[in-house]
Amino acid sequence: MNRIEIINGANLNLLGQREKDIYGERDFLTFLEELRKKYPQVQIDYFQSNVEGELVNELQESKADAIIINAGGYTHTSVVLRDAISSIETPVVEVHISNIFAREEFRHHSLIAPACKGSIIGFGLKSYEIALNYFLL
Amino acid sequence: MNRIEIINGANLNLLGQREKDIYGERDFLTFLEELRKKYPQVQIDYFQSNVEGELVNELQESKADAIIINAGGYTHTSVVLRDAISSIETPVVEVHISNIFAREEFRHHSLIAPACKGSIIGFGLKSYEIALNYFLL
Amino acid sequence: MNRIEIINGANLNLLGQREKDIYGERDFLTFLEELRKKYPQVQIDYFQSNVEGELVNELQESKADAIIINAGGYTHTSVVLRDAISSIETPVVEVHISNIFAREEFRHHSLIAPACKGSIIGFGLKSYEIALNYFLL
Amino acid sequence: MNRIEIINGANLNLLGQREKDIYGERDFLTFLEELRKKYPQVQIDYFQSNVEGELVNELQESKADAIIINAGGYTHTSVVLRDAISSIETPVVEVHISNIFAREEFRHHSLIAPACKGSIIGFGLKSYEIALNYFLL
Amino acid sequence: MNRIEIINGANLNLLGQREKDIYGERDFLTFLEELRKKYPQVQIDYFQSNVEGELVNELQESKADAIIINAGGYTHTSVVLRDAISSIETPVVEVHISNIFAREEFRHHSLIAPACKGSIIGFGLKSYEIALNYFLL
Amino acid sequence: MNRIEIINGANLNLLGQREKDIYGERDFLTFLEELRKKYPQVQIDYFQSNVEGELVNELQESKADAIIINAGGYTHTSVVLRDAISSIETPVVEVHISNIFAREEFRHHSLIAPACKGSIIGFGLKSYEIALNYFLL
Amino acid sequence: MNRIEIINGANLNLLGQREKDIYGERDFLTFLEELRKKYPQVQIDYFQSNVEGELVNELQESKADAIIINAGGYTHTSVVLRDAISSIETPVVEVHISNIFAREEFRHHSLIAPACKGSIIGFGLKSYEIALNYFLL
Amino acid sequence: MNRIEIINGANLNLLGQREKDIYGERDFLTFLEELRKKYPQVQIDYFQSNVEGELVNELQESKADAIIINAGGYTHTSVVLRDAISSIETPVVEVHISNIFAREEFRHHSLIAPACKGSIIGFGLKSYEIALNYFLL
Amino acid sequence: MNRIEIINGANLNLLGQREKDIYGERDFLTFLEELRKKYPQVQIDYFQSNVEGELVNELQESKADAIIINAGGYTHTSVVLRDAISSIETPVVEVHISNIFAREEFRHHSLIAPACKGSIIGFGLKSYEIALNYFLL
Amino acid sequence: MNRIEIINGANLNLLGQREKDIYGERDFLTFLEELRKKYPQVQIDYFQSNVEGELVNELQESKADAIIINAGGYTHTSVVLRDAISSIETPVVEVHISNIFAREEFRHHSLIAPACKGSIIGFGLKSYEIALNYFLL
Amino acid sequence: MNRIEIINGANLNLLGQREKDIYGERDFLTFLEELRKKYPQVQIDYFQSNVEGELVNELQESKADAIIINAGGYTHTSVVLRDAISSIETPVVEVHISNIFAREEFRHHSLIAPACKGSIIGFGLKSYEIALNYFLL
Amino acid sequence: MNRIEIINGANLNLLGQREKDIYGERDFLTFLEELRKKYPQVQIDYFQSNVEGELVNELQESKADAIIINAGGYTHTSVVLRDAISSIETPVVEVHISNIFAREEFRHHSLIAPACKGSIIGFGLKSYEIALNYFLL
Repeated sequence: MNRIEIINGANLNLLGQREKDIYGERDFLTFLEELRKKYPQVQIDYFQSNVEGELVNELQESKADAIIINAGGYTHTSVVLRDAISSIETPVVEVHISNIFAREEFRHHSLIAPACKGSIIGFGLKSYEIALNYFLL
Repeated sequence: MNRIEIINGANLNLLGQREKDIYGERDFLTFLEELRKKYPQVQIDYFQSNVEGELVNELQESKADAIIINAGGYTHTSVVLRDAISSIETPVVEVHISNIFAREEFRHHSLIAPACKGSIIGFGLKSYEIALNYFLL
Repeated sequence: MNRIEIINGANLNLLGQREKDIYGERDFLTFLEELRKKYPQVQIDYFQSNVEGELVNELQESKADAIIINAGGYTHTSVVLRDAISSIETPVVEVHISNIFAREEFRHHSLIAPACKGSIIGFGLKSYEIALNYFLL
Repeated sequence: MNRIEIINGANLNLLGQREKDIYGERDFLTFLEELRKKYPQVQIDYFQSNVEGELVNELQESKADAIIINAGGYTHTSVVLRDAISSIETPVVEVHISNIFAREEFRHHSLIAPACKGSIIGFGLKSYEIALNYFLL
Repeated sequence: MNRIEIINGANLNLLGQREKDIYGERDFLTFLEELRKKYPQVQIDYFQSNVEGELVNELQESKADAIIINAGGYTHTSVVLRDAISSIETPVVEVHISNIFAREEFRHHSLIAPACKGSIIGFGLKSYEIALNYFLL
Repeated sequence: MNRIEIINGANLNLLGQREKDIYGERDFLTFLEELRKKYPQVQIDYFQSNVEGELVNELQESKADAIIINAGGYTHTSVVLRDAISSIETPVVEVHISNIFAREEFRHHSLIAPACKGSIIGFGLKSYEIALNYFLL
Repeated sequence: MNRIEIINGANLNLLGQREKDIYGERDFLTFLEELRKKYPQVQIDYFQSNVEGELVNELQESKADAIIINAGGYTHTSVVLRDAISSIETPVVEVHISNIFAREEFRHHSLIAPACKGSIIGFGLKSYEIALNYFLL
Repeated sequence: MNRIEIINGANLNLLGQREKDIYGERDFLTFLEELRKKYPQVQIDYFQSNVEGELVNELQESKADAIIINAGGYTHTSVVLRDAISSIETPVVEVHISNIFAREEFRHHSLIAPACKGSIIGFGLKSYEIALNYFLL
Repeated sequence: MNRIEIINGANLNLLGQREKDIYGERDFLTFLEELRKKYPQVQIDYFQSNVEGELVNELQESKADAIIINAGGYTHTSVVLRDAISSIETPVVEVHISNIFAREEFRHHSLIAPACKGSIIGFGLKSYEIALNYFLL
Repeated sequence: MNRIEIINGANLNLLGQREKDIYGERDFLTFLEELRKKYPQVQIDYFQSNVEGELVNELQESKADAIIINAGGYTHTSVVLRDAISSIETPVVEVHISNIFAREEFRHHSLIAPACKGSIIGFGLKSYEIALNYFLL
Repeated sequence: MNRIEIINGANLNLLGQREKDIYGERDFLTFLEELRKKYPQVQIDYFQSNVEGELVNELQESKADAIIINAGGYTHTSVVLRDAISSIETPVVEVHISNIFAREEFRHHSLIAPACKGSIIGFGLKSYEIALNYFLL
Repeated sequence: MNRIEIINGANLNLLGQREKDIYGERDFLTFLEELRKKYPQVQIDYFQSNVEGELVNELQESKADAIIINAGGYTHTSVVLRDAISSIETPVVEVHISNIFAREEFRHHSLIAPACKGSIIGFGLKSYEIALNYFLL
């Protein structure tokens, strides 16, 4: 596990600006920088897009040994992301910043979860770090 | 309210050609020209895309004071558009050309409506003008 | 369009007193007075009742060229209002003060919407004025 | 069976004017006159109201030996009419002019049917005459 | 209307023996004899089968001017009977002996009703006579 | 708490005559007389109507310090009664004579309960007295 | 209990050839022969048909003191078999070879079970013998 | 009615500490002491357990003339408590501190209510006293 | 693939007479004749029945190398046809003349599709020829 | 099969006292004594508890060669009993005294059935003996 | 029909690598080459994208006389593809490689099918060829 | 965070023996020993019970700074565990060994998740270690 990619879906580029009571005050890129410093033993790739199909493209073309994905709002509606995860051999872990089970009903269900290795939900930005730790354990 | 943006979603570039009994005979760009002439006191920006994620991008990057959105078919399925609208501070009004409540059942429900300021539904192309008027009232 | 009637359903006589965080602080009659002053070119009739059947009566007997209806709580349960609207030839526009799609689930669905010309939802008391403007456009 | 009452619910006072493709061209009062002439051996009372509670009142106070009810749109939503029918001893037969099972889904279900003696559905104005005949058979 | 056929579906051959509290004490053939005597002006054909497909055959091959059908338990499950009724030009009226709306939930819905001219439900064996009268009115 | 109003909805004027196995043999007015005698320290107002909208009117105009409501069949269908209860400041307690949870499924759900202070269900006419006691405790 | 009939529904004539992992390798007629030898004190009648209505016919005309039925695929869809079982006085026990609750969802529900004396499910061909034993206990 | 037992289900031992905005600040044992003082004419037994089956045991073994039960979270899921209440002859009244109808959807339905004499919901700790009063009325 | 059987279910014997706007003007036997002429290299057997169980019989007893089935209205309700198709080894292809997905909701679902090799839907009578071509490809 | 254990769930200790019209008049221990006498060749262990988790404990710790379980009300709600049955290797047969399919809807579904060898439902106390016979066949 | 376009949706670029037990071992481009060789009389255009909106663009801009579309995972969720197909005049046939009715429940329903000419499902890569043949028949 | 408690629900005492393809081959106590050795800086308490109410007791009485809970089968049915977690101030993290979203439908929903800080699902026994790490991060 020398190279791990974080893939962020729609609206996650607004972290730190957007609905701060739900998603917190921190900017993702700042957080990413800290993460890279704390875990120098692993190369952390990063990709973000608001376009569902570009997330599919990235999943298909990723060079990483493992993928951490937060599909944002696509989590609840995207069959194609689920299919993309099933189609590749790289292990994928799903993360969420907020506790999706404690929000609106339509966020309680993840279409991609069954295709992932596992899910880590509700720990703020720490969810990403926990997932990273899983691959390094 | 000096600058208002109209964002049109999927297939609305075909207005005037497409299912004319539902959507009418008028081309959107012709209509837009007339609108701009009738309301010279406001700058009316315009954006159309068939790609869901590009609509998210545009919502995030819009420079307008207010947005009028007709998300087309994405209205009924898009969590990410709803999240994008919730993530920005610009007020957004949802419009529909046809009376979506009088069509197929899957069109009766708008996923983005709860995140919008309000909804204007069923008045043909006039729906856009009514929304514009709301911001100018 | 010389004569337009506003028909208000149940509990709308309490506007300004009732759940002010949802419905605002303004009294409907005061608002109506202002509306009549602002639009002297049109006669604005007004009818309010808490009784579903009296709203049906009024729809059947209205002398106006167009009707703006806010059926209040009957919006979500009344087949007879829907039938009354379908039975007359006067065009009817449905309005709501609050964004019903952002409230309790049972308020998300309007039984009368399919029979109306269109719907204007969520603009506070301005919803009435927007509807009025539609008929004057 | 000397006295039979016909009770008509909401919007049935518009028969002959309203949605003629569904309900036909005939005025109910003209039809009633013909019915009375054709069946002189029985007194036919008549009551119509658009107000649900007045239909309940009439059911409770009817002097007839049998009642023929067409509850109109209240058919599909009214628990109180069902309770009123269960509360009285006069036999009640439900009629409908149109075939409610061949129309919108919400019209397929009658809340009052289980409390009635039986139902006669879809025969145009003849539904009333068929019901009348049942009591005279 | 010189010739009318009664088609009875499954288990209706047991009338008079079967669940008498629901279906009554009378044998259908005795009842049929009485009916023929009472209405000598019309030829009343009769067909009964427990086999769904034979009911379809009979509907297709009937020589009658009108059909009265009680499909019994097939009422609630048979698409093919509905299709057969839609496929022929002879008018068909559906009857039921018991008030199906006051029984188990799965009996509340008739799949064939939308294809029929109308429905007569809950009048015991009189349901057949009422239907006959309709064709003679 | 010097003045308490009892509001009875549809068909409750028939108590003592109607479905006695469910609602008991006692007339409401006789019961009311006894109640007033037993609790002379409080003025007990009384209102009954079969018309939903008149119940709304009465809730809006009540002069009492507290209201005990049995909405009868409207309990299960009335958004406007719920809204009326939410719109006033007088505390409202919902009562039912029968155990609505042990009857037909459509009676298991009260639309007005969430807007009331509390509910007292199933104690026969004593439900009213228990509610009265609550206000006097 | 001198005479017991086994009635087998659709596709059970293929036992031993059909989906052997579910239904086993044994031919029903061979099994029946063994059963008759093992229980000589009782006459075991046998009937099989793929036609729903013929199963109804057989239930109505059976001369046995008790019936063991495996309705096969009709178990989940047949109102007429349920009605036939309710219509006769012979006690009927339902059996299934496979554990229908551990298969596709549409097989989890038996429409005929409520009309039977009881159900024996999942014991392979032994289900028939267990049912036979019940009548002999 | 000399002896009445209060049975409290899961987490009610935490009253006064737990979610005070919903359940209030008072400790149950303190409240119980006050209740016993106020109603010296009746012996008030008390039992609390977090274990569903122990609540069943207590219902079966209670020596009281009447039982007041607040099953807490088991209210919404326990068939066995419902069965236990149906199995004994002691009258049982269900109480709830909070208005369960105004909380999360899964709390709107009580599985035990149909087996109880009646329900008293939403009056805080007074719900217990109201129930006690019912037995003493 | 020398011998292919076409099995037609209920009401397909009426093709050319029945609901021509949906099913077209052509008689099936004429079409069959043409098909046999166009594809002389293969023996085309034909079977039609309105009886569900006879379709099961035919599936079990077919001598063909492959089967093309249009189960008509049984498509949506028949577990036994599904079981019959699963029970035999001959490959079966399902065809439909009309686009069942564009018709009434109850026609959108095929119970037999999961047991078939594949489905060909909506091409008019050409659906049969396309299926035939599949076996000859 | 020398040792078979019967495990009874909640409220089955009240048999013979409880709802006798449903569960019969016989005491379980008396019945058990008779069963042991009639089948001396097998050791019949017995365990009853009202506590779900103790039933799980017993399933895990049972020394028997086979288990007959009547989980009572837990049948319809218990995932943990299902998991316990799946977790052990001892074969388990589910029995019910009453015909659960002919009672309230929530009793129609058994959560544990898919994990059991088979189910025997509706034969009164004989259900246990039938299950015992199965293991001895 | 000189020019036919095949449009492939998300993840179909991975054919031959992805879940081979479901989708087979063949690469789509190799297959396409063979197809073009086998049918030289027609020009076969090809377009693939993982982006929903680009598929909409392609449908709108296609120069072909007919379109064969496999929308992949978008089949089950895309209103905009359905709208695009309805908006153009080119006939569109939907194909699927696997039998979607025999897979997970969410794949059983195609949102685009009602807008297509017809559907061909479950024949592996041959589905494309069958569709092609349809246009050439 | 000096003291962390792991609470295991029903059937988790069988790990290493039970359904090894789902839950793995390792014994929980062996795993726990390794965990304690690897993280000597924190005291790891352990509690397991098959009884729902004892899990509630333990949650209420825990002395730990944080709790890691795997409620096993109670995850999907227990309101009382959810309430217990909401009632205490100790932070609680939910873990699952298997990916519950990829198993039977009734395991897809966790009733306790909304009351927990977060969820870690599908990483085998590592799920516990990841949760532990979260508290130590």
